[in-house]
Amino acid sequence: MSDRMPKEDIDRVQRRLNQIWEIGKTDSSGVTRLAYTSEENVVFDYLRDELPREFDVWTDSVGNLFATPWPEAENSLYIGSHLDSVINGGRLDGVLGVITALEAIQTLHESSCQPPNPPTLAVFRGEESARFGQHTIGSRTALGMLTVEDFSATDQNDVPLWHAMQQAGFHPENLSEPTIDLDRVTGFLEVHIEQGRVLDESDDDLGVVTNIRAPVRYKITVEGAYDHSGATPMNLRHDALAGASAIILAIQRVGKEADNEGDLVATVGDITAVDGAINKVCGEVSFPLDIRSVNEAFRDQIESRILEEIRMTADQHNLQFEVQEIDRSSPVTMSEEIASQLAHAADSSESGYRFLPSGGGHDTMNFQQAGVPAGLLFVPSVDGVSHSPDEETYDDAVAAAVQTLIRFTLSEIEIANKKFTENKIEGNGGDHAF
Amino acid sequence: MSDRMPKEDIDRVQRRLNQIWEIGKTDSSGVTRLAYTSEENVVFDYLRDELPREFDVWTDSVGNLFATPWPEAENSLYIGSHLDSVINGGRLDGVLGVITALEAIQTLHESSCQPPNPPTLAVFRGEESARFGQHTIGSRTALGMLTVEDFSATDQNDVPLWHAMQQAGFHPENLSEPTIDLDRVTGFLEVHIEQGRVLDESDDDLGVVTNIRAPVRYKITVEGAYDHSGATPMNLRHDALAGASAIILAIQRVGKEADNEGDLVATVGDITAVDGAINKVCGEVSFPLDIRSVNEAFRDQIESRILEEIRMTADQHNLQFEVQEIDRSSPVTMSEEIASQLAHAADSSESGYRFLPSGGGHDTMNFQQAGVPAGLLFVPSVDGVSHSPDEETYDDAVAAAVQTLIRFTLSEIEIANKKFTENKIEGNGGDHAF
Repeated sequence: MSDRMPKEDIDRVQRRLNQIWEIGKTDSSGVTRLAYTSEENVVFDYLRDELPREFDVWTDSVGNLFATPWPEAENSLYIGSHLDSVINGGRLDGVLGVITALEAIQTLHESSCQPPNPPTLAVFRGEESARFGQHTIGSRTALGMLTVEDFSATDQNDVPLWHAMQQAGFHPENLSEPTIDLDRVTGFLEVHIEQGRVLDESDDDLGVVTNIRAPVRYKITVEGAYDHSGATPMNLRHDALAGASAIILAIQRVGKEADNEGDLVATVGDITAVDGAINKVCGEVSFPLDIRSVNEAFRDQIESRILEEIRMTADQHNLQFEVQEIDRSSPVTMSEEIASQLAHAADSSESGYRFLPSGGGHDTMNFQQAGVPAGLLFVPSVDGVSHSPDEETYDDAVAAAVQTLIRFTLSEIEIANKKFTENKIEGNGGDHAF
Repeated sequence: MSDRMPKEDIDRVQRRLNQIWEIGKTDSSGVTRLAYTSEENVVFDYLRDELPREFDVWTDSVGNLFATPWPEAENSLYIGSHLDSVINGGRLDGVLGVITALEAIQTLHESSCQPPNPPTLAVFRGEESARFGQHTIGSRTALGMLTVEDFSATDQNDVPLWHAMQQAGFHPENLSEPTIDLDRVTGFLEVHIEQGRVLDESDDDLGVVTNIRAPVRYKITVEGAYDHSGATPMNLRHDALAGASAIILAIQRVGKEADNEGDLVATVGDITAVDGAINKVCGEVSFPLDIRSVNEAFRDQIESRILEEIRMTADQHNLQFEVQEIDRSSPVTMSEEIASQLAHAADSSESGYRFLPSGGGHDTMNFQQAGVPAGLLFVPSVDGVSHSPDEETYDDAVAAAVQTLIRFTLSEIEIANKKFTENKIEGNGGDHAF
């Protein structure tokens, strides 16, 4: 089969990525294209104009777009991602998954192939939580997973999500009803940039995702006493910032130990010195804590260890503290069958690949959770950069991703929904053990 | 003399403090009365109305106010402080120094005393740097110490200081010329709340200040790499916030060691995680560093030790860093003669007192630096609270401060400008060794 494998048009991919980049482009060459803003609407219009006229195209009640040249097929493999971005994000996050999916489907269509798994392009609204604090709004609505509460979430101008949808021209009615006919969907595939450094450091073109790490998140507040920096001897201080610093170091230490024992990352990525000033001893500091693993039981165990470290460190520094849980999600194990087939397709296109977990959530995880076998294929993030104007990947990796999608749809497989074990995954392209 | 010592009217002091509290009072019962705002103007008007009509009153070219019932005296002891505040500050900072000075002078006048050192009330504009980033604007102008550069400093709405002065009705011309006749001024006294915990912990009513600690200040920037918190293994991170935490702890450790060896405080009172977020490894953190001592050579030595710790800690964490010096002031040694006499006056009024350094700068230090023997008398800050609506002191301490001023002006002394040694001061009311 490989001698007459349809060949993607990488120039067309690059042209589309560059044209979409212009929609919401920022001064620093990043992109701001928030959910249900005019920028998101315009890029959906652009995409619709790019679709070959032979494609059947439809939009659901919240503005997700679907398109396929095989509308009459009994079953379909859905492939896609999202078009919104974070504030001043990169040009590839989401968009690359949509454009590679379109390229694979269009290439198959142009070469008059009849794939055993006829694909449908799926393009979702509002994957990023940047505007409403709600992730994967479009794909969750498509799957009937959005709650009335989520639907009422507001942006920073107090505009509710439902109102923003209406302003964009959409009027969903029954949120618990999927907008797509799940009985027809054999599986879901998504291409995405990794958002981490693993592939760039290992020099692999592709990453086949086995699990999605899920976070437990806290807001930690450390309280001491405000004092004049010049007038308060060191031994009379209750310095909340010094105490918070000791806690942050303890979290990093436990996180490093745990990352050696199993799959775990623990992060303090922000900090606020409440009413901080150069001439004060700081009396209150707060910071978020994010702990993720593919293994929920292991994550729970490390979470307890970290909370105990926080208690002990605050005690040592004679400080009060509060911990407030703000999020607790469960890891998702992707379809083993799909991952195995993605690996096979990558292998047959002679692309270097490895198995790895995903650090963040993506639209595809909702399909897996809804019972649709789902896969996620990563291309490298150069230097691990993500959610930044400097986000970049490699042309060869983009071509490899499109080829892998093409080969996947042409393969004769029956997809069953098998689970991965949730152990630490150290597999690579050389063997398929994961 | 003590059997017929004039007695202050504490009810009058409290009434004036409470009436001034209403001018610029905030929702949280603090005070916002920034330099050269209408609030500062109104409180100067209030004070002028409170002055006995027999007093000679004059205002200089920047709005500082002076008043005395002995305008014909050949020499005068100036006593006073300021009426402006920080944003949502306390009701006593500055105001207490003005009202206790007025009370002492008015009490002497009412009792028909002819003090050997006839006092003049001195009330300065803009002591706090809250509006223009410039401290002691009024007293520095009175002494011819304000520079043209200082004069052009702007507030957060880009209003220059000189423009704010004009709007308040003042038109200074020659900044290098003192607005007061220094040849007539025998000395300067200021009462102020301590702004620290030392007196409250030692249960003394009064503190006689021997030296003013001066800061060297830096902005420290720590740079690592931004990464996705979920996608980046612990060993691939360059976490600027964890590195900054280690540096802050090292600064605290060196500061504690140094405070045991000599007079030193080292503080990180604020922190900024640049573009920080719960789902990122933070790539850049900045924070201010404030190091103070009464002993400049010792401070320089500890400063070097701290900068070396910063370098080593950043290296250990594989991070880049920058240190930017933003302020370097010299400690001031107050007049030994004045301090000694203040201690004697406190002692004769049977007030408990101790010698101590001041952590912050005050108007009085400018007089000392201009060659006028100057003193500073502290009352306790309850729980060390300062620059806060919760700022408070004790009624007994206020009465003791007024009595000490009265007794000082009635004593027969010739003030010479002697210096303190700059060693660590551990004296107390029991002996005069400092």
